[in-house]
Amino acid sequence: MSDRLSVGILGATGIVGQRLIQLLERHPWFEVKWLAASERSAGQPYREAARWRLKTPMPESVAGMVISPASPEGAPRIVFASLDGAIARELEPQFAEAGCAVISNSSALRMQPDVPLVIPEINADHLRLIEAQAWRKKSRGFVVTNSNCSAMGLALALAPIHKHFGLEKVFVVTMQAVSGAGYPGVASLDILGNVIPYIAQEEEKMEAETPKMLGSVNGSVAVPADFVMSAQCNRVAVEDGHTESVSVKLRKPATADEIIAAWRDYRGVPQDKRLPSAPEQPIVYDCAPDRPQPRFDADRGAGMAVSVGRLRPCPLLDWKFTVLSHNTIRGAAGAALLNAELLKAQGYFE
Amino acid sequence: MSDRLSVGILGATGIVGQRLIQLLERHPWFEVKWLAASERSAGQPYREAARWRLKTPMPESVAGMVISPASPEGAPRIVFASLDGAIARELEPQFAEAGCAVISNSSALRMQPDVPLVIPEINADHLRLIEAQAWRKKSRGFVVTNSNCSAMGLALALAPIHKHFGLEKVFVVTMQAVSGAGYPGVASLDILGNVIPYIAQEEEKMEAETPKMLGSVNGSVAVPADFVMSAQCNRVAVEDGHTESVSVKLRKPATADEIIAAWRDYRGVPQDKRLPSAPEQPIVYDCAPDRPQPRFDADRGAGMAVSVGRLRPCPLLDWKFTVLSHNTIRGAAGAALLNAELLKAQGYFE
Amino acid sequence: MSDRLSVGILGATGIVGQRLIQLLERHPWFEVKWLAASERSAGQPYREAARWRLKTPMPESVAGMVISPASPEGAPRIVFASLDGAIARELEPQFAEAGCAVISNSSALRMQPDVPLVIPEINADHLRLIEAQAWRKKSRGFVVTNSNCSAMGLALALAPIHKHFGLEKVFVVTMQAVSGAGYPGVASLDILGNVIPYIAQEEEKMEAETPKMLGSVNGSVAVPADFVMSAQCNRVAVEDGHTESVSVKLRKPATADEIIAAWRDYRGVPQDKRLPSAPEQPIVYDCAPDRPQPRFDADRGAGMAVSVGRLRPCPLLDWKFTVLSHNTIRGAAGAALLNAELLKAQGYFE
Amino acid sequence: MSDRLSVGILGATGIVGQRLIQLLERHPWFEVKWLAASERSAGQPYREAARWRLKTPMPESVAGMVISPASPEGAPRIVFASLDGAIARELEPQFAEAGCAVISNSSALRMQPDVPLVIPEINADHLRLIEAQAWRKKSRGFVVTNSNCSAMGLALALAPIHKHFGLEKVFVVTMQAVSGAGYPGVASLDILGNVIPYIAQEEEKMEAETPKMLGSVNGSVAVPADFVMSAQCNRVAVEDGHTESVSVKLRKPATADEIIAAWRDYRGVPQDKRLPSAPEQPIVYDCAPDRPQPRFDADRGAGMAVSVGRLRPCPLLDWKFTVLSHNTIRGAAGAALLNAELLKAQGYFE
Repeated sequence: MSDRLSVGILGATGIVGQRLIQLLERHPWFEVKWLAASERSAGQPYREAARWRLKTPMPESVAGMVISPASPEGAPRIVFASLDGAIARELEPQFAEAGCAVISNSSALRMQPDVPLVIPEINADHLRLIEAQAWRKKSRGFVVTNSNCSAMGLALALAPIHKHFGLEKVFVVTMQAVSGAGYPGVASLDILGNVIPYIAQEEEKMEAETPKMLGSVNGSVAVPADFVMSAQCNRVAVEDGHTESVSVKLRKPATADEIIAAWRDYRGVPQDKRLPSAPEQPIVYDCAPDRPQPRFDADRGAGMAVSVGRLRPCPLLDWKFTVLSHNTIRGAAGAALLNAELLKAQGYFE
Repeated sequence: MSDRLSVGILGATGIVGQRLIQLLERHPWFEVKWLAASERSAGQPYREAARWRLKTPMPESVAGMVISPASPEGAPRIVFASLDGAIARELEPQFAEAGCAVISNSSALRMQPDVPLVIPEINADHLRLIEAQAWRKKSRGFVVTNSNCSAMGLALALAPIHKHFGLEKVFVVTMQAVSGAGYPGVASLDILGNVIPYIAQEEEKMEAETPKMLGSVNGSVAVPADFVMSAQCNRVAVEDGHTESVSVKLRKPATADEIIAAWRDYRGVPQDKRLPSAPEQPIVYDCAPDRPQPRFDADRGAGMAVSVGRLRPCPLLDWKFTVLSHNTIRGAAGAALLNAELLKAQGYFE
Repeated sequence: MSDRLSVGILGATGIVGQRLIQLLERHPWFEVKWLAASERSAGQPYREAARWRLKTPMPESVAGMVISPASPEGAPRIVFASLDGAIARELEPQFAEAGCAVISNSSALRMQPDVPLVIPEINADHLRLIEAQAWRKKSRGFVVTNSNCSAMGLALALAPIHKHFGLEKVFVVTMQAVSGAGYPGVASLDILGNVIPYIAQEEEKMEAETPKMLGSVNGSVAVPADFVMSAQCNRVAVEDGHTESVSVKLRKPATADEIIAAWRDYRGVPQDKRLPSAPEQPIVYDCAPDRPQPRFDADRGAGMAVSVGRLRPCPLLDWKFTVLSHNTIRGAAGAALLNAELLKAQGYFE
Repeated sequence: MSDRLSVGILGATGIVGQRLIQLLERHPWFEVKWLAASERSAGQPYREAARWRLKTPMPESVAGMVISPASPEGAPRIVFASLDGAIARELEPQFAEAGCAVISNSSALRMQPDVPLVIPEINADHLRLIEAQAWRKKSRGFVVTNSNCSAMGLALALAPIHKHFGLEKVFVVTMQAVSGAGYPGVASLDILGNVIPYIAQEEEKMEAETPKMLGSVNGSVAVPADFVMSAQCNRVAVEDGHTESVSVKLRKPATADEIIAAWRDYRGVPQDKRLPSAPEQPIVYDCAPDRPQPRFDADRGAGMAVSVGRLRPCPLLDWKFTVLSHNTIRGAAGAALLNAELLKAQGYFE
């Protein structure tokens, strides 16, 4: 008999739900035992309810699993949630209230001051916000979130810079992959040979979530880092991998070599504790003049490493560079999974 | 007999040369009478030397024209030049020396202080630099240039802002079409489903050329406008149309309505003099939340109008917005043609 | 006051409805006076109900027009219909019953023996089936249809061959553009960098509709042409323009020159009567070795001409060649419009 | 010390050369010890001479290896060759003459009657043609070839059908990936949003090579299989994976179930002898209605398995179906490698 922990997935049929199933297929600690989705899908076997969009085949272990309704009855203790914002706002508190550890990829509760918004390499210590959550006190349930896919790669690339030199200003323009919009998501007639200079609410999320992740915890609330940030978000005809052109102003002077060293040497709790999904080196600097690129670099570190390149002086701020990360792995499903591994390693599932 | 002025094209087989031929097909003032290209092509009829890459058919009038060697002998007075930088640096002075009016799309001489870098709506008055050119004095030949394709759309969008409110800082990230790299240019294996975060020398050109065009003339030299600019350039899988995410800091406060009015009301010499290739309205602001987009907006004003959209406050500077322009029409061939029309209207061909 | 005939569009918000509006914008004979769509859109102005996906702007004349419910009350005599099959099967007879001339792009009634399936160049004479329709007898209403977008280009390319040499066998493999699936239609995640070797019901439609159009009328029923046909349909990442690889076996021997001449000289009623949307030359043979291509050739003849190329012997049948046609113009909206023009020219609207 | 056999690669910098290096990185039998390329690259370390276009990083073991001139001096006994046709025609005989076992992916010698054109699952027995080669007699050198990338997938899909039911006629239309044209290969301006209905010499190669591989050996010459074949080849905007729409006429009747069983049960020498690069199941039938697709299926069996789908009756011949195979793995580098493994297993390197 398996001694892996049972986990459930709320929103199992979507692109992020599929990635979670893929990443959990042979996971040493967790085992998918419960899948939930919208009413329309409930009662159907997963293979019929989901339109599988990944390159590896749908795992046999979930193909025949019957989709449960999206309610806490029958759900396991640990529930990954990947839901549309409005639905998450309603359902996630219900699950936490019922005693579930909700590891959420949804935007609904991310900016709530007592909900940790965590990238384990950066702010594992924010988990202690959990203890302040009303749900926790009542039922031992809680909610932990990861950020928007476009904020994730950026925050990782900024973290060592912020740690060593202090960020004062951050400018970012994104070129985001279509998988970030889910399935069916972006219509082909909208994006073939085109750029869409708009993603609803994306700039607001980036500008709010990045400082929260790079900030601190003061008692029972998260305090955002003190830098100003401006984001512009675009959709491009790429399948997986968000590319970001970034410029930063620092509080302390730094040379290119110092910044590159800060990236290359960056390690965090996931590396120290050897969490199963942790990439060996979370940030990889590529010194080729034309990298990183989504086609070649999105899958680095099994999609969990962030690629950085083209560090050069910025005439306006201090330094500019390009960041790339896999938006549905490090930017969504893998992020949630790494959060779950961190929670387990720190005893939150006991 | 035609009373149109004879013109020649140096670099006639490239993508920009093709666009020039297309735009000149039924031009009221100019008539293509001479085509020149590299030694390899010289002596061949144009239809055999050029791999025609435009959607309209190759004009009959040039199809049988024999390619001349790239030397001033036999060239008409007016010569459009679209050459690689290194070759242009050698050839363009030869043609000017020989008495030709060289209307250049090449980068070689753009930043030379006595060579005007002109967008007729913005800085038609820079043409008077011509009088200071040594060529002019010697043979009445001269060189006038237009900017890089990515600087062109940006400069046009910035011009009314700079005029009314004064620019202090400009931040731009480009997403550039493959036609900007010529033909064969970008390999399909490099760009399908991909973003390339690098275009050689493009950022340097944007940062140097934009202030020159928005600057002034002091005696016999061009003086760049006094703002700081930072550019990051990316290639995306789009055929035609460069999209740019821009943020600006102004010297005087401006409301969104004032900026939009400045764009909409912007007119220049080409509109006043009704130059044949001038768009009625050079800058079009689109208030849809997700525009401009290359597929839908690049051809606006027959490719000569610049589209702007998404004006919104910038947390870091003052305002951010998106600019789109057709890179081989307004950004190259159409730019050169409008320069030629301006020169004619101002008597420089007499 | 306009003396143009009032026309309505059933299914006005879809891609084909949009193309109809675009093609009718300055039509000499017809004027759009009535737009209908699904219940969800009824009551809204067109500019709000439709997500306009064409490169030319939405005509001012329709932008403010309020969408009517999809019922014959208030509809003009002439109604273009572009509806999903199931809905068309219910609605089109209602409109015909109520006295409307229904010019349909839908698949519902195409194969009904007393409904003409018409390409005006090929089988204008099939219109006499109208007289046999029960609707016609009752209310003077009737239904005329055009074929599936993939059958249209093929039928036009086959028509002169069939006329001069007789078809015995036809093999066709299509590579179809995404606009053929409507909007939102094909998800970008399904087609970027991909081929989908399946389009529901498309092969069946091609195999049934092509022989009907190339067939004859016997009394009150259409009799399909006597050739065997096999179709395989694929979707590719192209915006507009279906490319088809075709092979044919003929009943009489033909040389390449004879076939090319048959294509080049092909004319029909639309050319004789100079119908407003008729291309001067309906079939254009391009002798370049690598043409036709969707990017360069789909818009030929304003999207109404079919391009053919690469005629060469087939080791298995007699001849093979490539056909290209614009799927939403000649293949849908333009086809319906040409049918309407034919009907008017032949007095069916009196 | 390694007891792996030393191998060399002629044409090491091209796309197929890169794939060979990738596939050989941790090969149990072979070790890359010698790289050769054109004069321009000779003398440079591989990392500088090659523009690496694969997703996995360039192996450290070859990055510093200096490129040799393309001549037999210093070459190891076993040489993979992936050269342009004209160069191959000159060089491959020189290497064979000098005693090398030339495993060629080039087209030059494929159709020479005494040169085996081998897919190990299909016609391993054709290797005995080697003994008749003049080179063999003189120096023990020989040449073995694999087919064109588009013929490979087709031949594999046809092999079990031909074996069990006999082929009489084969019709195929291809939709080929850009990687098949090498690097830089297809210009992005030619293929973005486009289809090119022409690949030079590709149809001729398919029509000649497929019957040779499915044929027999009579004494010292290969005798092609006795079926008629017609091919039409198109290029589409796909990175890797050729999709083919196929129709066949059989000599003996077969049901769909029988054909699917023939595919599923098909095994050959590579499976029997467990060659390192042999896929467990060389042909995979997918019963989903819209598969195979390049994005999802090209990598099946590490790129060595061919995917088949959509088997259905053909109104013209007997059966139609879709075939997909990875064009640079099973269709080129992997094919050559499997041939080398077969040669070793059968003692040809002793």
